[in-house]
Amino acid sequence: MNEYKDIINIYDANIKEEKDYEKLIKFFGVKEIDDIILNNLKYITGDLHVLLRRKFFYAHRDFDILLNKYNEGKRFFLYTGRAPSKSKMHIGHLIPFLLTKWFQEKFNVNVYIQIPDEEKYWEKKADNYEEIREYALEDAKTIASLGFDPDKTFIFIDSEYIKNMYKAAIYVAREINLNTAKSVFGFDDNSTIGLPFYIALQIVPTFFERNIPLIPCGIDQDPYFRLQRDIAEKFGYYKASTILSKFVWGLQGPYTKMSASDPKSAIFIDDDYDTIRYKIFKYAFSGGRGTLEEHRKYGGNPDIDVSYFWLSVLFEEDDNKLKEIREKYIMGELTTGELKEYTAKKIWEFLSNIQERRKNINIDKFMYDGRLAREMWEWEFRI
Amino acid sequence: MNEYKDIINIYDANIKEEKDYEKLIKFFGVKEIDDIILNNLKYITGDLHVLLRRKFFYAHRDFDILLNKYNEGKRFFLYTGRAPSKSKMHIGHLIPFLLTKWFQEKFNVNVYIQIPDEEKYWEKKADNYEEIREYALEDAKTIASLGFDPDKTFIFIDSEYIKNMYKAAIYVAREINLNTAKSVFGFDDNSTIGLPFYIALQIVPTFFERNIPLIPCGIDQDPYFRLQRDIAEKFGYYKASTILSKFVWGLQGPYTKMSASDPKSAIFIDDDYDTIRYKIFKYAFSGGRGTLEEHRKYGGNPDIDVSYFWLSVLFEEDDNKLKEIREKYIMGELTTGELKEYTAKKIWEFLSNIQERRKNINIDKFMYDGRLAREMWEWEFRI
Repeated sequence: MNEYKDIINIYDANIKEEKDYEKLIKFFGVKEIDDIILNNLKYITGDLHVLLRRKFFYAHRDFDILLNKYNEGKRFFLYTGRAPSKSKMHIGHLIPFLLTKWFQEKFNVNVYIQIPDEEKYWEKKADNYEEIREYALEDAKTIASLGFDPDKTFIFIDSEYIKNMYKAAIYVAREINLNTAKSVFGFDDNSTIGLPFYIALQIVPTFFERNIPLIPCGIDQDPYFRLQRDIAEKFGYYKASTILSKFVWGLQGPYTKMSASDPKSAIFIDDDYDTIRYKIFKYAFSGGRGTLEEHRKYGGNPDIDVSYFWLSVLFEEDDNKLKEIREKYIMGELTTGELKEYTAKKIWEFLSNIQERRKNINIDKFMYDGRLAREMWEWEFRI
Repeated sequence: MNEYKDIINIYDANIKEEKDYEKLIKFFGVKEIDDIILNNLKYITGDLHVLLRRKFFYAHRDFDILLNKYNEGKRFFLYTGRAPSKSKMHIGHLIPFLLTKWFQEKFNVNVYIQIPDEEKYWEKKADNYEEIREYALEDAKTIASLGFDPDKTFIFIDSEYIKNMYKAAIYVAREINLNTAKSVFGFDDNSTIGLPFYIALQIVPTFFERNIPLIPCGIDQDPYFRLQRDIAEKFGYYKASTILSKFVWGLQGPYTKMSASDPKSAIFIDDDYDTIRYKIFKYAFSGGRGTLEEHRKYGGNPDIDVSYFWLSVLFEEDDNKLKEIREKYIMGELTTGELKEYTAKKIWEFLSNIQERRKNINIDKFMYDGRLAREMWEWEFRI
């Protein structure tokens, strides 16, 4: 149970090299998302989201079982979250929400989005709680702008919604001891007394419905839900199913962290076109050659190129177009400048839509007065 | 800092012998309540509550300073609490509330009473949360029946009031790490993840006012407030002052625990006269002699007699009468039966009043719609 901590620090999500992802599958005891499961899903949904098609979501826990149960008539609901910190969201933060939104569209199910405003503060990743609280609301607006159904989506900030969650947290916190918490999450006695308790709060929303919780999230978040699976049935609820993603690259290169606290590493949701273009041209690590001449002669390496990475993960949905870019880049037909130009445009295309929707977002519907939100402010945990 | 745990287990409040109380004073670094401080208090209040006069509250932290500040015009407020468990309250549980009520009467100040319905559950002292929740309300009613001012007293159950407390708990929980929590409270990694977090919740009410918190409680509770004192000024609040009591004896004898889960050890608040009398006669350890003849000849020992203990701590307020009882018992003039009969009557006198008031208690005033309660449901923590 301990070894995975040599690969990732759960409080600093990242890995060192591609093969670490396979190790994580083994250490966590999860399964790879293979073509069989994707075909089964596609049979229901008609198509597959680019994040699935490209296998950026690459592992799962019981998603195959969930699909079988779905086919037998069993319902599920979606749950994911975002811990606000000391800066706004970057494009990497969108990943779990984009897949969650796709699932909502395809299956017409409820989505619960937790904004834990205590986590980063207790982790000491951010020092100003009032500022975190402001980002909590900003993040909620950004997330809502991705196109979730306002009557089937409930976005809640922990400190606002704690009254409804606390009873369940009392039950959950009793089932987990410090030993387990430490061995699963890797913190030590220098941790604040808040952080172990937070585990309970991240588990609570899996009990919002008596249906199966499906949780798209980074693979670093799986430990929370492994603990949930030890508890859920005892309380009369379903074990959570997770769909687990890899980590995005920062602009500095392969397996660097896109960190909101380092603006050189990240493209933020509210960056304008010029900023995006500037950052990509100035900071995005390139797999191209040192000179144009060499590039034309020897070609570039898309597999270490941050622009190509982002196209392949998310921003180039057209599989043929991506293949063409890849091939031309390898052949040296496509230059680094051209690839960067194209990537900047694709990212802007994507973000400008979100920015536009964000201007007029009615966040109250998601948080307080949409159909699901109204229901949830009446919700009480029952065992 | 560690040694006091050889003397008391904070989660099982009791000691082994009288001299342990002095050791606790040294280990905790608190001060004895001496005649100087009592005279200073009496100068303001006119008289002294029996629990002070008999020095059952025997230690304090900064109470002398609080009195000086009071004389300079500074205000204070009272805070204490009761963690509901799997049975109703016994007479020992009344101690901190009786002194708190006396202080309210004398100083006309606000009282805050916390009913933490999560603590015993997280401690695994009780297994049925729903039952604890029921006792929480029963305990609130019992406490309110002691005669607190309904417009100046706020009784709150953690799980109900958590929304208002949580922001402060977020701040407090960040300031305490597991190391400190363990060394101060003596729990280990088998503890649930709830218990360390609970420390924050017990500290939060010390920030309900920008006045000095005065906390009458058992000396085992002092560690919570020692931690509070490390944090308070950083947040712009006052360090807590505590008035610390000894532990009551169970019916089984000196330094046994009066435990609500052992009905042979305890007299409950709602016991009727016959039950009280029966328990005292059947279970109360006596300092009397084996036969009446021996008793008349050699006399009894009041210092190991549970009936006498309870008279001296609380139920015989008349100092002269107590002295007379003590002397007559030592001389063998007063028999064990007579002492028990008298004690049963005094306890019944005391409890029947509470039981009578409890029948018609308007608990909503204390919890929701009295003047202070209404204010507190609007209260928000500000740093």
